Amino acid sequence: SRSINLAVIPGDGIGQEVVAEGLKVLSAVLPQDVKLETKEYDFGARRYHATGETLTDADLDALKQHDAILLGAIGDPSVPSGVLERGFLLRLRFAFDHHVNLRPSKLLPGVATPLAGEPQIDFVVVREGTEGPYTGNGGTIRKGTEHEVATEVSVNTAFGVERVVRDAFARAQARPRKKLALIHKNNVLTFAGHLWTNIFNKVAEEFPEVTTEYMHVDAATIYLVTQPERFDVIVTDNLFGDIVTDLAAAVSGGIGVAASGNINPSGEFPSMFEPVHGSAPDIAGQGKADPSATVLSVALLLRHLGHEAEADRIDAAVAADLAERTGKPARSTSEIGDALAVRVAG
Amino acid sequence: SRSINLAVIPGDGIGQEVVAEGLKVLSAVLPQDVKLETKEYDFGARRYHATGETLTDADLDALKQHDAILLGAIGDPSVPSGVLERGFLLRLRFAFDHHVNLRPSKLLPGVATPLAGEPQIDFVVVREGTEGPYTGNGGTIRKGTEHEVATEVSVNTAFGVERVVRDAFARAQARPRKKLALIHKNNVLTFAGHLWTNIFNKVAEEFPEVTTEYMHVDAATIYLVTQPERFDVIVTDNLFGDIVTDLAAAVSGGIGVAASGNINPSGEFPSMFEPVHGSAPDIAGQGKADPSATVLSVALLLRHLGHEAEADRIDAAVAADLAERTGKPARSTSEIGDALAVRVAG
Ligand SMILES: CC(C)[C@H](C(=O)O)[C@@H](O)C(=O)O
Ligand SMILES: CC(C)[C@H](C(=O)O)[C@@H](O)C(=O)O
Repeated sequence: SRSINLAVIPGDGIGQEVVAEGLKVLSAVLPQDVKLETKEYDFGARRYHATGETLTDADLDALKQHDAILLGAIGDPSVPSGVLERGFLLRLRFAFDHHVNLRPSKLLPGVATPLAGEPQIDFVVVREGTEGPYTGNGGTIRKGTEHEVATEVSVNTAFGVERVVRDAFARAQARPRKKLALIHKNNVLTFAGHLWTNIFNKVAEEFPEVTTEYMHVDAATIYLVTQPERFDVIVTDNLFGDIVTDLAAAVSGGIGVAASGNINPSGEFPSMFEPVHGSAPDIAGQGKADPSATVLSVALLLRHLGHEAEADRIDAAVAADLAERTGKPARSTSEIGDALAVRVAG
Repeated sequence: SRSINLAVIPGDGIGQEVVAEGLKVLSAVLPQDVKLETKEYDFGARRYHATGETLTDADLDALKQHDAILLGAIGDPSVPSGVLERGFLLRLRFAFDHHVNLRPSKLLPGVATPLAGEPQIDFVVVREGTEGPYTGNGGTIRKGTEHEVATEVSVNTAFGVERVVRDAFARAQARPRKKLALIHKNNVLTFAGHLWTNIFNKVAEEFPEVTTEYMHVDAATIYLVTQPERFDVIVTDNLFGDIVTDLAAAVSGGIGVAASGNINPSGEFPSMFEPVHGSAPDIAGQGKADPSATVLSVALLLRHLGHEAEADRIDAAVAADLAERTGKPARSTSEIGDALAVRVAG
């Protein structure tokens, strides 16, 4: 479309700094005739402390009007653990049915990895985003006593699993290697595991060109460090996806370059794009954060909205920028953003 | 004690081969005056196919008579996923209240790691073994239909968490660095997460010398590959422990050398010692398996039974054997066992 109406949520800590650079690059890459409108929303720790609110129904109504959402990071040590995560981030993912949580991992030339040798890493994780252990089901009895019992209920539905598995197969089918791995723990979590495995095997019949494999999540962590080249597309549940994507980010250049999309493929609600990293309060406000993960999330956003060429230009700009870093002095957040803006425009 | 009455469960695949070497080294290391009695039990795929049984009440009664259990590996592709895991392995861990699942990770000199540089790795994971998402709570409705719902319930009790946290603090206190990290996901799994975190903080007050930190499981996977030297003792839940110990094994020399103990600290039931690796049906019967993980599990077994000096001799023998491997031709399972038996006796 020839206009983008974007909701911008800088959030906490370095979120502010990296989102500014994401927007800088977005403005620079868009052709003149694409009209960019942005509206900034103040969510996160500041709003919570001032009002006690994390994300209201009215907020959701406002956000719903946008084509997409760009998020920096939410979270601050001054807020009890879980309040902003459950009250804002997860509430938004659930309310807007972001069931495809897309997290590409690509080790770009010149980028350091903690792995020995020269691993070839280029895969994408399709993490389920609206079910599993993330639903908030569960509870506590006899809280604070020696007889306390706390439960967490992982909820998995055929509907929810099939749609994300189907999305992953379609992505695998569209890639040159056409490989898809299901990661679960079906030898222990047999109820959810069998649901996932059966649906995976059923959908596989519709994609005969896609080579499939199953692996337990514990084994997957081994392969991610010993044979990361083995992976092309991974589909997995919400919690396993959370874990393996952080490990995947670590081996493919770190969370400074890990982008993600919380996607509602039907377009019924706006999708949200955010770096995998958090608000990093320890370095906030110092211009030390690498905005690359946010800029790459902007590329995912553009691709989602159909601006393929612009997304490609951003990916190429980040790759070129990373390739030239070795041996150079460290740059500030905005210097990196400036350099990327120049590259995408040029 | 001056006698050891050991239950031996070789199990499936390479379990048979590695357990034979474990016993060889055990016999070699024990002083003349310690009487070793062993009784072999046939559990696993063969027994399941022949009788439909995995582990009966009578089996448990028989196993209960022993001082400890040495297990090779259980699992075979001919048996549906989950049947032997839930029906044997987890049934045994739960029946014998193996709540301390102890998994040391030490990168020994001369051992290859997938990590770049020369990481210093020497930590131990205390994984809870009788609760969390492993209890088998949950279920399925409308199985096989498009309306299927499958749940998995993680059950966490103050009783179960406190005893394992206390065990971990005591271990941290006894180590030179005196550091303990709690790994959970308390920003999302808030019910279980708060139980774990509160108990961890409460017990911490009794161990003022122990330095503590908390980290989310996703962040922990990053640190395990970027800063593994950061860890000394880790305490975590059953499922997170499963995941991080496979990753820990991968970075510290692979599952060929990863040992584990399923410990009942009270001694009410026998503890069980097993390599972290599985039955590896692809290489079974070929003499290719490395018995070191099983031999190191025998060392954990001896230490548990109070034979510290013999445990130390095994650890030293395995370390010396590993240090001399580089550049030498590969040896068979029994050749490695022979070499270790010579070393511990010498
Ligand atoms: C902050 C937290 C709720 C979130 C998650 O667990 O999904 C984060 O770790 C992520 O991966 O986006
Ligand atoms: C085989 C399986 C049940 C087991 C587990 O998940 O605990 C294994 O992975 C382990 O780590 O011992």
